[in-house]
Amino acid sequence: MIKITSIITITITISSIICSVTFIQAEVIQASRIGVSFQNSRVTLSPMEGTSYLSERGPGASRNEGVRTINLILNDVASAVVIVKTEICVRISSVAPEGAVRYGLVSDLDGDITVKFREESVSGYGSEEDVAPVVVAYVHVATVSRQENDKRVEFLFYNVDGEDLGKADLHLTCVDISLDVDADRDGIVEKNSPHKNSWKWGRDGYGAVLLVNSDCETANETEMRDTDDELVNGPLDLLDMGRMMLRTDGPEQLPEGYSMQLYVDDKFADYVGVFYLTADTEAMMKNKHVIGPRQRAAEVLYPGMGGEVEFAVEGLSFPDRYFEGFLHIHLALFKDDVPIYEDMVQFRVAPWIMTPNTLEAEIVYVCDTRDNKHFVEKLRGFVEGLSGIQLVVCGLDGNRGDRWMQDEIELGYTEVPQRQPMAVVLDSPRERGLCKFSQRQCLGPDFGYATRNTSRHKANSLDSFGNLEVSPPVKLNGKDFPLGRILIGNALTSSLKGRRMMRVVNRFLYAQKVQPVIELFSDWLNVGHIDEFMTFVPVPGSRQGFRLCLASPNKAYGILEKLQTDGHGDVVMFEGKRASRRSKQMKQETVSELLANQTLRAENKKFQAYIDFNRDILKRELGLEEGDIVDIPEIFINELDPKNETIEPQATSYFPDMVNMLVLGKNLAIPKPFGPVIDGECAFERYVRSALEPLGLSCYFLDDWYTYHLQGGEVHCGTNTKRKPFSVKWWDLDLPRMCQ
Amino acid sequence: MIKITSIITITITISSIICSVTFIQAEVIQASRIGVSFQNSRVTLSPMEGTSYLSERGPGASRNEGVRTINLILNDVASAVVIVKTEICVRISSVAPEGAVRYGLVSDLDGDITVKFREESVSGYGSEEDVAPVVVAYVHVATVSRQENDKRVEFLFYNVDGEDLGKADLHLTCVDISLDVDADRDGIVEKNSPHKNSWKWGRDGYGAVLLVNSDCETANETEMRDTDDELVNGPLDLLDMGRMMLRTDGPEQLPEGYSMQLYVDDKFADYVGVFYLTADTEAMMKNKHVIGPRQRAAEVLYPGMGGEVEFAVEGLSFPDRYFEGFLHIHLALFKDDVPIYEDMVQFRVAPWIMTPNTLEAEIVYVCDTRDNKHFVEKLRGFVEGLSGIQLVVCGLDGNRGDRWMQDEIELGYTEVPQRQPMAVVLDSPRERGLCKFSQRQCLGPDFGYATRNTSRHKANSLDSFGNLEVSPPVKLNGKDFPLGRILIGNALTSSLKGRRMMRVVNRFLYAQKVQPVIELFSDWLNVGHIDEFMTFVPVPGSRQGFRLCLASPNKAYGILEKLQTDGHGDVVMFEGKRASRRSKQMKQETVSELLANQTLRAENKKFQAYIDFNRDILKRELGLEEGDIVDIPEIFINELDPKNETIEPQATSYFPDMVNMLVLGKNLAIPKPFGPVIDGECAFERYVRSALEPLGLSCYFLDDWYTYHLQGGEVHCGTNTKRKPFSVKWWDLDLPRMCQ
Repeated sequence: MIKITSIITITITISSIICSVTFIQAEVIQASRIGVSFQNSRVTLSPMEGTSYLSERGPGASRNEGVRTINLILNDVASAVVIVKTEICVRISSVAPEGAVRYGLVSDLDGDITVKFREESVSGYGSEEDVAPVVVAYVHVATVSRQENDKRVEFLFYNVDGEDLGKADLHLTCVDISLDVDADRDGIVEKNSPHKNSWKWGRDGYGAVLLVNSDCETANETEMRDTDDELVNGPLDLLDMGRMMLRTDGPEQLPEGYSMQLYVDDKFADYVGVFYLTADTEAMMKNKHVIGPRQRAAEVLYPGMGGEVEFAVEGLSFPDRYFEGFLHIHLALFKDDVPIYEDMVQFRVAPWIMTPNTLEAEIVYVCDTRDNKHFVEKLRGFVEGLSGIQLVVCGLDGNRGDRWMQDEIELGYTEVPQRQPMAVVLDSPRERGLCKFSQRQCLGPDFGYATRNTSRHKANSLDSFGNLEVSPPVKLNGKDFPLGRILIGNALTSSLKGRRMMRVVNRFLYAQKVQPVIELFSDWLNVGHIDEFMTFVPVPGSRQGFRLCLASPNKAYGILEKLQTDGHGDVVMFEGKRASRRSKQMKQETVSELLANQTLRAENKKFQAYIDFNRDILKRELGLEEGDIVDIPEIFINELDPKNETIEPQATSYFPDMVNMLVLGKNLAIPKPFGPVIDGECAFERYVRSALEPLGLSCYFLDDWYTYHLQGGEVHCGTNTKRKPFSVKWWDLDLPRMCQ
Repeated sequence: MIKITSIITITITISSIICSVTFIQAEVIQASRIGVSFQNSRVTLSPMEGTSYLSERGPGASRNEGVRTINLILNDVASAVVIVKTEICVRISSVAPEGAVRYGLVSDLDGDITVKFREESVSGYGSEEDVAPVVVAYVHVATVSRQENDKRVEFLFYNVDGEDLGKADLHLTCVDISLDVDADRDGIVEKNSPHKNSWKWGRDGYGAVLLVNSDCETANETEMRDTDDELVNGPLDLLDMGRMMLRTDGPEQLPEGYSMQLYVDDKFADYVGVFYLTADTEAMMKNKHVIGPRQRAAEVLYPGMGGEVEFAVEGLSFPDRYFEGFLHIHLALFKDDVPIYEDMVQFRVAPWIMTPNTLEAEIVYVCDTRDNKHFVEKLRGFVEGLSGIQLVVCGLDGNRGDRWMQDEIELGYTEVPQRQPMAVVLDSPRERGLCKFSQRQCLGPDFGYATRNTSRHKANSLDSFGNLEVSPPVKLNGKDFPLGRILIGNALTSSLKGRRMMRVVNRFLYAQKVQPVIELFSDWLNVGHIDEFMTFVPVPGSRQGFRLCLASPNKAYGILEKLQTDGHGDVVMFEGKRASRRSKQMKQETVSELLANQTLRAENKKFQAYIDFNRDILKRELGLEEGDIVDIPEIFINELDPKNETIEPQATSYFPDMVNMLVLGKNLAIPKPFGPVIDGECAFERYVRSALEPLGLSCYFLDDWYTYHLQGGEVHCGTNTKRKPFSVKWWDLDLPRMCQ
C-alpha cells in the first residue's frame, strides 16, 4: 500500500487568548513533507461548532453519548479501536514536550479522517497568563478499517522557531458496531434506527415490543410455561420471541485486548431471556439463554467483515410494581476490562389486557359439581344453542368441588405487532379447588399463563376475580380509554380495618397501565365482589355503547311498594324455595311481609348508600350519565357473623342477584329472582325485561337458587368467558393523555 | 321566618327525543302557588353547559371531582349535607310516579339555589322510543346554611293533563369545608388555593413544602430525633413543622350521622405526622400525633360557624426509593360510614442536599487518635490559623480509634421556604468506631440526622462516604444543575462480581433528585473511594467556576521521565519514610529505580485507563472540557490480596495521594507526596503548585505518611467539612428540564 501523507502545522499564540474557549486559527505554514500538497489531502481541519460534541442525552441517543478521550505517547505509537462516525478526543498538550507552541498533523490519505483542533483553556481569577493552554484534537473517521490500525494520524510538535520537538503517532482501527431491534414494528430489524432505544405511545409512536412468552409449546410439560425454562421450546416458541441483531463492520477480527459483551442491568435480569438465533432450530433447542435470569452478561464474538449475529428475545414477566415494562439490552465494547463504547436497545413488554362484556365471546367455562347438572344443561342451551358459543365444562377432577369459575381466573390476552394476539389467563391467588385449572386447562400453545402470589399473605375473598372486572371502552373529558378501565373492589381508603385486594395483584393490575384501574367499595358485601352489584351490557350505537347495570335496593322496594299499593301485597315470593340448602325452612313470604321488615329496610338504605357511593365513582371515572345506568332490583341482607368483628356489615343478596349475569352479546343469562308473580310473570323479571329489552337485549332467566345463590354466588360467579381481543392496539393508545 | 316560594313546571315530551342528550325546554306553565311570580324567584332554571360537571381530573382539582348523586323519596323528605358552590345530581325520574311527564319545582327564596334540569336519555339500537327518559336535576347552592336543612327544594310531578301526582322534598344543609396549606410559600395558609394539591418546579412554581423534622430539640434525649417520637418537642420543634388549616362554615353543628375524618393513605402513613396546633405549647407537648405512623386516620370535630382548626405537620422521612417526596392529606366528610365529600392537600418534603467544595466552609472535623497529634496540630494551623474556620476534634472516646472522619458521615442540609436551612448529617452504614459520632456530636437543635441501613446487608468499603461526593454547580447542553450533581463510585455496570454501594443508600441518593447522581468506577481501588482519584477546587470566574482534579499516573511518569532525561535519575524519593507503619523496611528509591519497575508501569497503564474511563463520564455528565481538568501526579500499586479473588485489582496510592486534599476556599491542604527533591523542592509539589497556583489557589502540603497514607487514606479521608448551604433554593430548580 502506498502511503501518501500530508502535513498541517498550526501556531498557537498563547498570550492572546482571552475568551474561555478559542477555536484555533489553522494557519498552514508548512504544507509538504513528502511532496504532497495540503489541497490533495483528505484530512480536513476545521473549527468545531459550539459544544456540539456534547450530544444531548435525549431518549433517541442510543449510541454512547460522550466523547472518548485518548492519550497519546510522545515519540511512540498509541493505538485504539474507534467507532465509525463518532468523535474521539485526543489530548495534544498533555504529551507536548516543553516549549512546543506549534502542532503539526500528518495523516494517511486512504483514511478519510477529519481532525479538528480546539484550545480548551479556561480563564481563572488572577494570573491566567501563567496557565498553559490545553490543546485537544477531535478525530472523526468516516469509514471502517479493513486492517488493524490502518487509520493513522501523526501529531508533530514544534517550538516557536519551527524546530521539530518530536511527534506522537495515533493508529486507529475503525469499526462499526450496532445492536438493532425492530423499532418501527414492521417485522424487519432495521439498522441503527433512531428509535431503537426509545418509546412513544400513540398512532405515530415507535419502539420495539416484546411478548411475554407465557404460553407452553412443550408437548410433555403441560404445566410449565416457556418462560419457566431457559430453553427454546421448538419452532413455535421462536415465533413468540422478538428479534435483535448485532451488526458489525471492520477488519476480520478485533485487535488484541478488545472484546464485546452483551448485558442487562441487574434490575432487568429476571425479565428477559436472549438466545442466539440460527437456522438450525434443533441445535438452538440445546442452547440455553445467552442472557437471562441466571446470567445477565455474556461475551459475544465479533463476527468481523460485515458479519451479523441474530438473537431471539423473550419477555419473562408482564409489567409489575417494580418493572415498568421497559427492558434495556446493552452491547459494550471492551478494551481489556474497560468499556470504551456502548450501544443499547430497548424493548417494551406487552401488557396483559382484559376483555369487557362488549367483546365477542369465544368460550364459556363452567364447573360440573355433580349437584348442578340441571343448571349446566340450561346453561348449555343458552351458550351453545342460543348464542352459538362453545361451552367448556370442567369436571369434578378439575374443580374438586369448587364451582366458582369466575373467581379462580381472569381471561385476557397480550399482543405484539405482526403476530396474532396470545390469550393469557391470570390465575388468582385464592387457591381453592380450581387452583390448577388454568395451568391444566388453559395453558398451552398460544395460551399463556400469569399469576401473582405471595407466600407471605393468605388470600382473602376480595382477591377472587369476581372482584376484578373491566369496563367497555369509554371517553371522558376528552380522554379516550379505548381498552376500557379495570375495576376492582376494596375497603374504603379511609378505612382502617377491612379487607383489601392483595398488594401484589393490585399492583400488577395498575402496572399494565393500558386499562387504568378504578377502585370501588365492595368490602360491605360478605363475599366482597364487585360483580355482586354491577355489570355492563352492550348497547351498540348508544352514547357510550353500553349500559352500566347496578343492583338497586331502592328499585326493588319501589316495585314491591307499587305492588302493595296496587293490591298485590299478599302475593307470595320465592315460592317453594328453601331458605338454605340443607334446612327445610322456607324462604317464601308475601310482598307485604317483606315490606314490613323494618330491619331489612334500614339495612338496605345503608346498602343503597354504598352502591350510590360506587355509582358516583363510576359516573366520574367512566364519564357516565344517569341515562347510561340501569337499576336492577335487588335486596341485600346483613349476614353479620357476630364472631367476625372486623368486617361490618356483611351483605348478601336476599334473592338471586340479577345483576350477576352472564353477558354473551345481546343475550343475557340472568339469575332467576323468583319474585312476586303477577299475571303469570315475575314482577322483577318484568321490570328487568322492560328496562333492557328496548335496548335490544334478550333476557334469559336461569334458576341458580340451590346450586349457586344459596352458596353465595350466582350465574356470573359460576361461569367465565374467553372473549376475542380488541381490534385497537395497545401501543396506539395515547397513554400520556390518559394519565393526565 | 317568612317562606316565599316559587313554582316552575316543565313539560317533557318523551316521544320527540332523538339526540342522546336533550336539554329540557323549560316551559313555565304555572308560575304561582302562593302568589309569587317566577320573576321574583332567586331560583334559576337553565340548561347546563356540555359536560362541564365532569371536571377535568387535573392536578389542580383538589376538591372532590365527581358530582354526588342524591336519591329523592316520593311524598317524603330527603335531606342531605352539601358543599357550598358544588353541584349535586338529583335523580328525578327514578322516583317519578307512573304517568308523570311534567316536573315542577318549588324552592325557598332565602336560599340562593340554582337548579338545572337535564334529560340524560341515551339512544340504543332499535326500539328506543320504549325507553323512558332519565330526568335529573343539578342543584347548586351558593351560600352556606345557618340552620340544619334550611335550603329547601320541592320537586312536583304532574301527568300529561297537569294533574298533581305527588312531590319529593329535598332539604339541604349547605356547608363550606376546606383543608388548606401554604401553596404559594409565603408563610400564610391561604384559603382554598388552586395549588393546594399540586406542585410545579421552578421559579414560577408552587406547592406546599414540608421539612423533615430530623433534628433534636429535646434537651435530655440527645440521640433521638424529633421524628422519633410522636410528640411536639417544645416551641423550637414547632418551628420545624408546616402549617395546615381546616376551615369550615355552616350551621353550629353537622346534622346527625355526619362526621369528618382526616386521613392519609396507607403508603404515606410512615412519612408524616400531624398535630393539633394551639396557642398553649405546654398543652400541645402532651398531645400525640393526630395522624402519624401509629394512626393514619382520625376523626376531627367540625368547629362550626366559621370555625377553624389549625394543624402542625412534620415530615418524617426524606424522599426515598418508594417515596417520591409527595404527601397527600385527605379530609373526608362522612354520612354514616360513606364518604360523601373529600378535600385534599399536598406537601412535598424537602430533599437532603450535599455541599460541594466550592461552598464556604464553616467547621472542619478531624479525629484525635493519639498517634496523630502532630497532624492535628498542623491541620489546626491550616484550618483555624490560615483559613479562619473552626476545627472540631473528635476525641478517642468518640472515635474509638477510627480516624476516617470522611467515611462515616456526609454533611448536608435541607431547606423549606420562610426558614433558615437546617443542617443534616447523613450517617453511613459502615458502622465502625465513629458510628455514634453523628448522633452524639452533630444531632441537636437545627442539626438533623438521617441514615439508611439494612440489617440484611453488611456494608462494604464502597458504602463509606469517601465514595460520596458532589460536584459544584454545572451547566451542560442548556441544562442547569445549580446544586451540582452527586458522585458515587461503584463496580462497572456490566461487571458480574465486584463491590457496589448498598442499594438503600444508592436509592436514597437518587431519590433526592435535585443533585442527579453520576456513578463512577471506583471498585478497582482497594478502598474503592472516588476521593482517591478526584476532587474539585474552586476557580471563581472560570468557565464552570471550578477545576476537576484527577489523579494521573501518566502525569507522574511524565514528571519522573523528564527528571531522568534531565539527569536526576539518582534522586531519592520518599527519603527516610518506612514502607509500612510497623516494619522498618524503607520505601525510599531513586527516580530511575521506580521507572525501571515494569510491573508497576504496566499496572499504572491499566489504572490510567480506569481513570480515563471516569474522566470521560465526568466530561460528559458535568459538561467539562479538557481545560476544566487538572492532572495531579500519582502512581498506584496493585495490592491484590491473593485470598480475595472477587476484587481484581486492588489499587492503592504508591505515595501520598495529593488529589485527596481538604479544600477550604482557595486554601488546599494536600498530602505531602515526599517525591524527588530537586533544587530544594519536591518535583511533584512543584508541578501541583504550577498547575493550581496560577488559578488563585494556595497549596499547603501536610505530612500524613504514617498517620493516614500507610493506613489507606489521606487528608481528605481523615477530615470532614460542614459548609454553608447554597443560596439557590431547590424548589426553584427546573427539574423536568434537568431530567430530560
